[in-house]
Amino acid sequence: MTRQILLLVQFDGTDFHGWQQQDGLRTVQSSLSKAFYVLAKEQPTLRASSRTDAGVHAQGLPVLFKTETQIPLRGILRGLNTHLATDLAVVDVAEVDPEFHVRQNAGGKIYRYTIWNDRPRSPLLARYAWNFRIPLDNEAMQEAAQAWIGEHDFSSFRAADCQSKSTIRRITAVNVERHDHRVEVIVQGNAFLQHMVRIMVGTLVEVGRGFKPVEWTKEALLAQSRPSAGPTAPPHGLCLEKVIYEPSPFGGDGSQK
Amino acid sequence: MTRQILLLVQFDGTDFHGWQQQDGLRTVQSSLSKAFYVLAKEQPTLRASSRTDAGVHAQGLPVLFKTETQIPLRGILRGLNTHLATDLAVVDVAEVDPEFHVRQNAGGKIYRYTIWNDRPRSPLLARYAWNFRIPLDNEAMQEAAQAWIGEHDFSSFRAADCQSKSTIRRITAVNVERHDHRVEVIVQGNAFLQHMVRIMVGTLVEVGRGFKPVEWTKEALLAQSRPSAGPTAPPHGLCLEKVIYEPSPFGGDGSQK
Repeated sequence: MTRQILLLVQFDGTDFHGWQQQDGLRTVQSSLSKAFYVLAKEQPTLRASSRTDAGVHAQGLPVLFKTETQIPLRGILRGLNTHLATDLAVVDVAEVDPEFHVRQNAGGKIYRYTIWNDRPRSPLLARYAWNFRIPLDNEAMQEAAQAWIGEHDFSSFRAADCQSKSTIRRITAVNVERHDHRVEVIVQGNAFLQHMVRIMVGTLVEVGRGFKPVEWTKEALLAQSRPSAGPTAPPHGLCLEKVIYEPSPFGGDGSQK
Repeated sequence: MTRQILLLVQFDGTDFHGWQQQDGLRTVQSSLSKAFYVLAKEQPTLRASSRTDAGVHAQGLPVLFKTETQIPLRGILRGLNTHLATDLAVVDVAEVDPEFHVRQNAGGKIYRYTIWNDRPRSPLLARYAWNFRIPLDNEAMQEAAQAWIGEHDFSSFRAADCQSKSTIRRITAVNVERHDHRVEVIVQGNAFLQHMVRIMVGTLVEVGRGFKPVEWTKEALLAQSRPSAGPTAPPHGLCLEKVIYEPSPFGGDGSQK
Protein backbone atom coordinates (compact mmCIF):
# COMPACT_ATOMS: atom_id res chain seq x y z
CA MET A 1 0.00 0.00 0.00
CA THR A 2 1.42 3.35 -1.07
CA ARG A 3 1.95 5.81 1.78
CA GLN A 4 2.56 9.54 1.55
CA ILE A 5 5.21 10.73 4.04
CA LEU A 6 6.01 14.28 5.10
CA LEU A 7 9.44 14.98 6.59
CA LEU A 8 10.46 18.11 8.45
CA VAL A 9 14.09 18.73 7.56
CA GLN A 10 16.64 21.03 9.23
CA PHE A 11 19.95 21.98 7.66
CA ASP A 12 22.92 24.31 7.84
CA GLY A 13 23.04 25.46 4.21
CA THR A 14 26.71 26.53 4.25
CA ASP A 15 27.99 23.41 2.51
CA PHE A 16 24.97 22.66 0.30
CA HIS A 17 24.28 23.92 -3.22
CA GLY A 18 20.67 24.55 -2.19
CA TRP A 19 17.75 22.11 -2.32
CA GLN A 20 17.56 20.94 -5.90
CA GLN A 21 19.44 17.93 -7.23
CA GLN A 22 22.29 18.94 -9.59
CA ASP A 23 24.85 16.64 -11.15
CA GLY A 24 28.05 16.42 -9.15
CA LEU A 25 26.95 18.92 -6.49
CA ARG A 26 26.01 18.27 -2.88
CA THR A 27 22.39 19.33 -2.45
CA VAL A 28 19.78 18.71 0.25
CA GLN A 29 17.55 16.78 -2.16
CA SER A 30 20.33 14.46 -3.33
CA SER A 31 21.59 13.84 0.23
CA LEU A 32 18.09 12.91 1.44
CA SER A 33 17.46 10.81 -1.63
CA LYS A 34 20.67 8.81 -1.14
CA ALA A 35 19.95 8.27 2.56
CA PHE A 36 16.42 7.05 1.79
CA TYR A 37 17.76 4.65 -0.81
CA VAL A 38 20.18 3.14 1.72
CA LEU A 39 17.31 2.79 4.21
CA ALA A 40 14.47 1.53 2.00
CA LYS A 41 15.99 0.64 -1.39
CA GLU A 42 13.62 3.06 -3.09
CA GLN A 43 14.28 6.36 -4.82
CA PRO A 44 11.04 8.32 -4.66
CA THR A 45 10.66 11.86 -5.99
CA LEU A 46 11.15 14.27 -3.08
CA ARG A 47 9.14 17.49 -3.22
CA ALA A 48 10.06 20.42 -0.96
CA SER A 49 7.80 23.28 -0.01
CA SER A 50 10.49 25.70 -1.29
CA ARG A 51 13.60 25.45 -3.41
CA THR A 52 16.09 27.14 -1.14
CA ASP A 53 19.10 28.86 -2.73
CA ALA A 54 22.68 27.76 -2.12
CA GLY A 55 23.82 28.88 1.32
CA VAL A 56 20.33 29.43 2.76
CA HIS A 57 19.49 27.55 5.98
CA ALA A 58 16.30 25.86 7.15
CA GLN A 59 14.97 25.41 10.66
CA GLY A 60 12.16 23.28 9.25
CA LEU A 61 11.68 22.53 5.54
CA PRO A 62 8.74 20.20 4.73
CA VAL A 63 9.61 17.47 2.23
CA LEU A 64 6.94 15.16 0.77
CA PHE A 65 7.17 11.81 -1.01
CA LYS A 66 5.23 8.67 -1.88
CA THR A 67 6.67 5.30 -0.88
CA GLU A 68 5.88 1.60 -0.77
CA THR A 69 8.04 1.04 2.31
CA GLN A 70 6.28 -0.20 5.43
CA ILE A 71 9.03 1.02 7.79
CA PRO A 72 7.28 2.73 10.76
CA LEU A 73 7.57 6.53 11.04
CA ARG A 74 10.07 6.48 13.90
CA GLY A 75 12.21 4.04 11.91
CA ILE A 76 12.21 6.41 8.94
CA LEU A 77 13.26 9.36 11.13
CA ARG A 78 16.00 7.49 12.98
CA GLY A 79 17.14 5.54 9.92
CA LEU A 80 17.51 8.62 7.73
CA ASN A 81 19.39 10.52 10.44
CA THR A 82 21.87 7.66 10.74
CA HIS A 83 22.75 8.10 7.06
CA LEU A 84 22.89 11.92 6.96
CA ALA A 85 25.89 14.16 7.77
CA THR A 86 25.82 16.44 10.83
CA ASP A 87 24.62 19.48 8.84
CA LEU A 88 21.34 17.83 7.75
CA ALA A 89 18.69 16.01 9.80
CA VAL A 90 15.05 14.96 9.79
CA VAL A 91 13.53 16.58 12.90
CA ASP A 92 9.95 15.34 12.52
CA VAL A 93 7.94 12.96 10.35
CA ALA A 94 4.23 12.32 9.64
CA GLU A 95 2.07 10.19 7.36
CA VAL A 96 -0.37 12.36 5.40
CA ASP A 97 -3.42 11.87 3.14
CA PRO A 98 -2.81 10.98 -0.51
CA GLU A 99 -4.35 14.38 -1.38
CA PHE A 100 -1.88 16.38 0.72
CA HIS A 101 0.21 18.75 -1.41
CA VAL A 102 3.40 20.21 0.05
CA ARG A 103 2.94 23.62 -1.61
CA GLN A 104 -0.80 24.04 -2.16
CA ASN A 105 -1.63 23.02 1.42
CA ALA A 106 0.84 25.49 2.91
CA GLY A 107 -1.03 28.33 4.60
CA GLY A 108 2.06 30.51 4.83
CA LYS A 109 5.79 30.65 5.35
CA ILE A 110 8.01 32.44 7.82
CA TYR A 111 11.55 33.47 6.92
CA ARG A 112 14.13 35.02 9.26
CA TYR A 113 17.04 37.11 7.98
CA THR A 114 19.86 37.87 10.45
CA ILE A 115 22.22 40.84 10.16
CA TRP A 116 25.26 41.26 12.45
CA ASN A 117 25.37 45.06 12.60
CA ASP A 118 28.78 45.88 14.03
CA ARG A 119 32.20 46.76 12.72
CA PRO A 120 34.10 43.78 14.15
CA ARG A 121 32.93 40.52 12.60
CA SER A 122 31.32 37.86 14.81
CA PRO A 123 32.96 34.46 14.18
CA LEU A 124 30.22 32.71 16.18
CA LEU A 125 27.56 34.13 13.81
CA ALA A 126 29.65 34.06 10.62
CA ARG A 127 27.72 31.15 9.09
CA TYR A 128 24.28 32.52 9.96
CA ALA A 129 24.37 36.31 9.68
CA TRP A 130 25.25 38.99 7.12
CA ASN A 131 27.89 41.28 8.65
CA PHE A 132 26.76 44.81 7.77
CA ARG A 133 29.12 47.31 9.40
CA ILE A 134 27.32 50.65 8.99
CA PRO A 135 24.86 51.31 11.86
CA LEU A 136 21.28 50.54 10.80
CA ASP A 137 18.20 52.42 11.99
CA ASN A 138 15.99 49.43 12.69
CA GLU A 139 12.97 51.60 13.55
CA ALA A 140 13.09 53.24 10.12
CA MET A 141 13.39 49.75 8.58
CA GLN A 142 10.37 48.53 10.56
CA GLU A 143 8.30 51.50 9.40
CA ALA A 144 9.46 51.16 5.77
CA ALA A 145 8.60 47.45 5.66
CA GLN A 146 4.93 48.05 6.47
CA ALA A 147 4.38 49.33 2.89
CA TRP A 148 4.58 45.71 1.72
CA ILE A 149 1.82 44.28 3.92
CA GLY A 150 -1.11 42.98 1.91
CA GLU A 151 -1.54 41.54 -1.58
CA HIS A 152 0.68 43.20 -4.17
CA ASP A 153 2.55 42.67 -7.42
CA PHE A 154 6.10 42.00 -6.20
CA SER A 155 7.80 42.23 -9.63
CA SER A 156 10.43 44.57 -8.16
CA PHE A 157 11.38 41.89 -5.66
CA ARG A 158 12.22 38.88 -7.75
CA ALA A 159 15.34 37.50 -9.38
CA ALA A 160 15.86 38.14 -13.09
CA ASP A 161 15.48 34.42 -13.84
CA CYS A 162 12.48 33.79 -11.55
CA GLN A 163 10.11 31.38 -13.31
CA SER A 164 6.82 32.19 -11.54
CA LYS A 165 3.90 33.04 -13.84
CA SER A 166 2.17 35.22 -11.27
CA THR A 167 4.03 37.93 -9.40
CA ILE A 168 1.17 38.56 -6.96
CA ARG A 169 1.97 37.55 -3.38
CA ARG A 170 0.43 38.31 0.00
CA ILE A 171 2.68 39.50 2.84
CA THR A 172 1.03 39.20 6.25
CA ALA A 173 3.79 40.52 8.54
CA VAL A 174 7.27 42.01 8.49
CA ASN A 175 9.06 42.65 11.78
CA VAL A 176 12.48 44.22 12.18
CA GLU A 177 13.88 43.50 15.64
CA ARG A 178 17.16 44.62 17.16
CA HIS A 179 18.89 42.56 19.87
CA ASP A 180 22.05 44.55 20.63
CA HIS A 181 24.16 44.30 17.46
CA ARG A 182 21.93 41.66 15.92
CA VAL A 183 19.13 42.86 13.63
CA GLU A 184 16.53 40.33 12.54
CA VAL A 185 14.02 40.73 9.75
CA ILE A 186 11.13 38.26 10.07
CA VAL A 187 8.83 38.03 7.06
CA GLN A 188 5.60 36.07 6.84
CA GLY A 189 3.65 35.60 3.62
CA ASN A 190 1.51 33.14 1.67
CA ALA A 191 4.34 32.35 -0.77
CA PHE A 192 7.48 34.01 -2.11
CA LEU A 193 9.12 34.76 -5.46
CA GLN A 194 12.75 33.77 -6.08
CA HIS A 195 15.12 35.93 -3.95
CA MET A 196 12.11 37.90 -2.67
CA VAL A 197 13.11 37.99 1.01
CA ARG A 198 16.75 38.72 0.18
CA ILE A 199 15.76 41.67 -2.06
CA MET A 200 13.37 42.94 0.64
CA VAL A 201 16.23 42.85 3.16
CA GLY A 202 18.65 44.52 0.72
CA THR A 203 16.03 47.25 0.20
CA LEU A 204 15.38 47.75 3.93
CA VAL A 205 19.14 48.07 4.54
CA GLU A 206 19.27 51.00 2.07
CA VAL A 207 16.69 52.72 4.28
CA GLY A 208 18.35 51.64 7.54
CA ARG A 209 21.73 53.05 6.55
CA GLY A 210 20.12 56.35 5.55
CA PHE A 211 20.65 56.13 1.77
CA LYS A 212 16.92 56.14 1.04
CA PRO A 213 13.86 57.59 2.81
CA VAL A 214 11.24 55.44 4.53
CA GLU A 215 8.76 56.06 1.67
CA TRP A 216 11.12 54.51 -0.88
CA THR A 217 9.98 50.96 -0.12
CA LYS A 218 6.47 51.85 -1.35
CA GLU A 219 7.84 53.49 -4.51
CA ALA A 220 10.00 50.45 -5.20
CA LEU A 221 6.92 48.21 -4.88
CA LEU A 222 4.74 50.38 -7.15
CA ALA A 223 7.47 50.63 -9.82
CA GLN A 224 7.13 46.89 -10.53
CA SER A 225 10.65 46.64 -11.93
CA ARG A 226 13.65 44.95 -10.32
CA PRO A 227 16.07 47.93 -10.66
CA SER A 228 13.73 50.08 -8.54
CA ALA A 229 14.42 47.97 -5.43
CA GLY A 230 17.65 47.50 -3.46
CA PRO A 231 20.40 44.91 -3.92
CA THR A 232 19.96 41.23 -3.07
CA ALA A 233 21.22 40.48 0.45
CA PRO A 234 23.64 37.51 0.63
CA PRO A 235 22.10 34.05 1.14
CA HIS A 236 23.82 32.98 4.38
CA GLY A 237 21.77 35.38 6.56
CA LEU A 238 18.51 33.73 5.48
CA CYS A 239 16.73 30.87 7.25
CA LEU A 240 13.38 29.27 6.39
CA GLU A 241 11.87 29.16 9.87
CA LYS A 242 8.52 27.48 9.35
CA VAL A 243 5.94 26.45 6.78
CA ILE A 244 2.45 26.68 8.24
CA TYR A 245 -0.11 23.91 7.61
CA GLU A 246 -3.48 23.98 9.35
CA PRO A 247 -4.02 21.62 11.00
CA SER A 248 -0.37 20.74 11.53
CA PRO A 249 0.40 17.28 10.12
CA PHE A 250 3.04 16.79 12.81
CA GLY A 251 1.62 15.27 15.97
CA GLY A 252 4.13 16.65 18.40
CA ASP A 253 7.84 17.09 18.66
CA GLY A 254 10.07 14.57 16.94
CA SER A 255 11.31 13.24 20.27
CA GLN A 256 8.19 11.08 20.52
CA LYS A 257 8.99 9.27 17.30
CA MET B 1 57.84 53.19 24.04
CA THR B 2 56.57 49.76 24.98
CA ARG B 3 52.80 49.50 25.13
CA GLN B 4 50.72 46.75 26.68
CA ILE B 5 47.68 45.82 24.56
CA LEU B 6 44.65 43.75 25.55
CA LEU B 7 42.61 42.14 22.79
CA LEU B 8 39.15 40.64 23.16
CA VAL B 9 39.04 37.67 20.82
CA GLN B 10 36.03 35.69 19.57
CA PHE B 11 36.28 32.34 17.82
CA ASP B 12 34.39 29.29 16.65
CA GLY B 13 36.62 26.56 18.11
CA THR B 14 35.48 23.80 15.73
CA ASP B 15 38.51 24.00 13.48
CA PHE B 16 41.13 25.03 16.08
CA HIS B 17 43.30 22.78 18.23
CA GLY B 18 42.59 25.03 21.19
CA TRP B 19 44.50 28.14 22.25
CA GLN B 20 48.07 27.06 22.73
CA GLN B 21 50.67 27.07 19.95
CA GLN B 22 51.58 23.55 18.81
CA ASP B 23 53.83 22.60 15.92
CA GLY B 24 51.95 21.95 12.71
CA LEU B 25 48.49 22.50 14.26
CA ARG B 26 46.10 25.38 13.73
CA THR B 27 45.62 27.08 17.09
CA VAL B 28 44.15 30.43 18.14
CA GLN B 29 47.51 31.62 19.52
CA SER B 30 49.44 30.77 16.34
CA SER B 31 46.78 32.32 14.08
CA LEU B 32 46.81 35.58 16.07
CA SER B 33 50.58 35.56 16.25
CA LYS B 34 50.94 35.19 12.47
CA ALA B 35 48.39 37.92 11.80
CA PHE B 36 50.17 40.30 14.19
CA TYR B 37 53.50 39.59 12.50
CA VAL B 38 52.04 40.47 9.08
CA LEU B 39 50.61 43.68 10.54
CA ALA B 40 53.48 44.93 12.72
CA LYS B 41 56.53 42.76 11.91
CA GLU B 42 56.79 41.75 15.57
CA GLN B 43 56.15 38.42 17.24
CA PRO B 44 55.30 39.20 20.87
CA THR B 45 54.34 36.54 23.41
CA LEU B 46 50.55 36.37 23.55
CA ARG B 47 49.03 35.49 26.92
CA ALA B 48 45.40 34.39 27.16
CA SER B 49 43.24 34.48 30.27
CA SER B 50 42.51 30.76 29.75
CA ARG B 51 43.94 27.96 27.67
CA THR B 52 40.82 26.70 25.98
CA ASP B 53 40.70 23.05 24.91
CA ALA B 54 40.40 21.96 21.29
CA GLY B 55 36.83 22.47 20.06
CA VAL B 56 35.81 24.93 22.81
CA HIS B 57 34.45 28.31 21.62
CA ALA B 58 34.91 31.83 22.98
CA GLN B 59 32.52 34.76 22.88
CA GLY B 60 35.28 36.94 24.37
CA LEU B 61 38.75 35.67 25.31
CA PRO B 62 41.13 38.37 26.63
CA VAL B 63 44.63 38.17 25.10
CA LEU B 64 47.49 40.34 26.39
CA PHE B 65 50.85 41.29 24.87
CA LYS B 66 53.62 43.87 24.96
CA THR B 67 54.61 45.62 21.75
CA GLU B 68 56.78 48.40 20.37
CA THR B 69 54.37 49.14 17.54
CA GLN B 70 52.81 52.59 17.48
CA ILE B 71 49.86 51.53 15.32
CA PRO B 72 46.71 53.10 16.85
CA LEU B 73 44.23 50.77 18.57
CA ARG B 74 41.63 50.88 15.79
CA GLY B 75 44.37 50.06 13.28
CA ILE B 76 45.36 47.02 15.34
CA LEU B 77 41.75 45.78 15.50
CA ARG B 78 41.02 46.32 11.82
CA GLY B 79 44.45 45.20 10.66
CA LEU B 80 44.35 41.93 12.59
CA ASN B 81 40.83 41.14 11.39
CA THR B 82 41.95 41.59 7.78
CA HIS B 83 44.51 38.83 8.28
CA LEU B 84 42.33 36.37 10.26
CA ALA B 85 39.99 33.70 8.83
CA THR B 86 36.21 34.00 9.30
CA ASP B 87 36.19 31.78 12.41
CA LEU B 88 38.46 34.11 14.46
CA ALA B 89 38.22 37.86 15.07
CA VAL B 90 39.32 40.61 17.43
CA VAL B 91 36.08 42.18 18.71
CA ASP B 92 37.58 44.81 21.02
CA VAL B 93 40.98 46.27 21.93
CA ALA B 94 42.40 48.42 24.73
CA GLU B 95 45.74 49.77 25.93
CA VAL B 96 46.37 48.80 29.56
CA ASP B 97 48.86 49.66 32.34
CA PRO B 98 52.23 47.88 32.32
CA GLU B 99 51.14 46.23 35.61
CA PHE B 100 47.97 44.73 34.15
CA HIS B 101 48.01 40.91 34.30
CA VAL B 102 45.58 38.96 32.14
CA ARG B 103 44.99 36.25 34.76
CA GLN B 104 45.66 37.88 38.13
CA ASN B 105 43.51 40.91 37.33
CA ALA B 106 40.55 38.77 36.28
CA GLY B 107 37.77 39.04 38.86
CA GLY B 108 35.91 36.03 37.50
CA LYS B 109 34.93 34.06 34.45
CA ILE B 110 31.61 33.01 32.99
CA TYR B 111 31.26 29.83 30.92
CA ARG B 112 28.15 28.65 29.09
CA TYR B 113 27.56 25.00 28.20
CA THR B 114 24.79 24.23 25.70
CA ILE B 115 22.97 20.89 25.49
CA TRP B 116 20.49 20.09 22.69
CA ASN B 117 18.15 17.80 24.61
CA ASP B 118 16.08 16.09 21.94
CA ARG B 119 16.18 12.86 19.98
CA PRO B 120 16.51 14.34 16.51
CA ARG B 121 19.81 16.16 16.10
CA SER B 122 19.79 19.89 15.39
CA PRO B 123 22.07 20.67 12.40
CA LEU B 124 21.85 24.41 13.13
CA LEU B 125 23.27 23.82 16.64
CA ALA B 126 25.59 20.92 15.76
CA ARG B 127 28.76 22.99 16.15
CA TYR B 128 27.71 24.63 19.43
CA ALA B 129 25.71 22.11 21.46
CA TRP B 130 26.08 18.61 22.85
CA ASN B 131 23.17 16.50 21.57
CA PHE B 132 21.98 14.54 24.60
CA ARG B 133 18.89 12.52 23.63
CA ILE B 134 17.51 11.32 26.98
CA PRO B 135 15.15 13.90 28.55
CA LEU B 136 16.92 15.88 31.28
CA ASP B 137 15.27 17.16 34.46
CA ASN B 138 16.74 20.66 34.43
CA GLU B 139 15.20 21.55 37.79
CA ALA B 140 16.97 18.64 39.48
CA MET B 141 20.19 19.74 37.76
CA GLN B 142 19.71 23.31 39.01
CA GLU B 143 19.19 22.08 42.58
CA ALA B 144 22.14 19.67 42.41
CA ALA B 145 24.51 22.37 41.13
CA GLN B 146 24.00 24.56 44.20
CA ALA B 147 26.20 22.18 46.25
CA TRP B 148 29.22 23.62 44.46
CA ILE B 149 28.63 27.29 45.33
CA GLY B 150 31.38 28.71 47.51
CA GLU B 151 35.08 27.97 47.97
CA HIS B 152 35.91 24.26 47.76
CA ASP B 153 38.58 21.74 46.82
CA PHE B 154 37.53 20.74 43.29
CA SER B 155 39.91 17.76 42.94
CA SER B 156 37.02 15.61 41.71
CA PHE B 157 36.44 18.03 38.86
CA ARG B 158 39.77 18.22 37.10
CA ALA B 159 41.48 16.38 34.26
CA ALA B 160 44.02 13.69 35.17
CA ASP B 161 46.84 15.78 33.67
CA CYS B 162 45.76 19.13 35.17
CA GLN B 163 48.89 21.05 36.22
CA SER B 164 47.44 23.40 38.84
CA LYS B 165 49.14 23.34 42.23
CA SER B 166 46.07 24.42 44.12
CA THR B 167 42.73 22.70 43.60
CA ILE B 168 40.79 25.30 45.59
CA ARG B 169 38.40 27.37 43.48
CA ARG B 170 35.45 29.61 44.25
CA ILE B 171 32.19 29.12 42.34
CA THR B 172 29.85 32.09 42.61
CA ALA B 173 26.88 30.93 40.52
CA VAL B 174 25.58 27.97 38.54
CA ASN B 175 22.35 28.31 36.59
CA VAL B 176 20.66 25.58 34.59
CA GLU B 177 18.13 27.06 32.16
CA ARG B 178 15.82 25.31 29.74
CA HIS B 179 14.63 27.02 26.56
CA ASP B 180 12.43 24.37 24.90
CA HIS B 181 14.83 21.57 23.89
CA ARG B 182 17.92 23.65 24.66
CA VAL B 183 19.42 23.31 28.16
CA GLU B 184 22.11 25.80 29.15
CA VAL B 185 24.45 25.50 32.12
CA ILE B 186 26.00 28.86 33.01
CA VAL B 187 28.86 28.71 35.52
CA GLN B 188 30.61 31.67 37.13
CA GLY B 189 33.71 31.36 39.28
CA ASN B 190 36.99 33.04 40.17
CA ALA B 191 39.03 30.56 38.12
CA PHE B 192 38.72 27.01 36.82
CA LEU B 193 40.76 23.80 36.78
CA GLN B 194 41.36 21.95 33.52
CA HIS B 195 38.08 20.43 32.20
CA MET B 196 36.29 21.65 35.36
CA VAL B 197 33.16 23.00 33.65
CA ARG B 198 32.93 19.99 31.33
CA ILE B 199 33.13 17.57 34.30
CA MET B 200 30.53 19.64 36.19
CA VAL B 201 28.20 19.37 33.21
CA GLY B 202 28.86 15.64 32.79
CA THR B 203 28.03 15.22 36.49
CA LEU B 204 24.83 17.30 36.30
CA VAL B 205 23.67 15.25 33.31
CA GLU B 206 23.91 12.06 35.41
CA VAL B 207 21.48 13.71 37.84
CA GLY B 208 19.28 15.17 35.08
CA ARG B 209 18.80 11.80 33.38
CA GLY B 210 17.89 10.18 36.71
CA PHE B 211 20.96 7.95 37.16
CA LYS B 212 22.06 9.75 40.34
CA PRO B 213 20.18 11.59 43.10
CA VAL B 214 20.40 15.35 43.60
CA GLU B 215 22.65 14.86 46.68
CA TRP B 216 25.29 13.07 44.61
CA THR B 217 26.90 16.31 43.42
CA LYS B 218 27.82 17.14 47.02
CA GLU B 219 29.22 13.64 47.64
CA ALA B 220 31.26 13.88 44.43
CA LEU B 221 32.72 17.19 45.62
CA LEU B 222 33.57 15.93 49.12
CA ALA B 223 35.21 12.74 47.77
CA GLN B 224 38.01 14.84 46.22
CA SER B 225 38.80 12.20 43.62
CA ARG B 226 38.12 12.33 39.88
CA PRO B 227 36.32 8.94 39.63
CA SER B 228 33.69 10.13 42.12
CA ALA B 229 32.33 12.68 39.64
CA GLY B 230 30.61 12.14 36.28
CA PRO B 231 32.12 11.88 32.80
CA THR B 232 33.64 14.84 30.95
CA ALA B 233 31.10 16.45 28.62
CA PRO B 234 32.37 16.96 25.03
CA PRO B 235 34.18 20.24 24.27
CA HIS B 236 31.98 21.61 21.48
CA GLY B 237 29.10 22.53 23.86
CA LEU B 238 31.38 24.85 25.86
CA CYS B 239 31.85 28.58 25.30
CA LEU B 240 33.91 31.04 27.35
CA GLU B 241 31.37 33.85 27.58
CA LYS B 242 33.21 36.55 29.50
CA VAL B 243 36.21 37.29 31.68
CA ILE B 244 35.37 39.97 34.24
CA TYR B 245 37.81 42.82 34.99
CA GLU B 246 36.82 45.69 37.26
CA PRO B 247 36.94 48.33 36.01
CA SER B 248 36.56 47.01 32.45
CA PRO B 249 39.61 47.89 30.35
CA PHE B 250 37.40 48.10 27.27
CA GLY B 251 35.90 51.55 26.75
CA GLY B 252 32.84 50.53 24.86
CA ASP B 253 31.91 48.26 22.05
CA GLY B 254 34.45 47.57 19.35
CA SER B 255 32.39 49.46 16.79
CA GLN B 256 33.87 52.74 18.02
CA LYS B 257 37.42 51.61 17.24
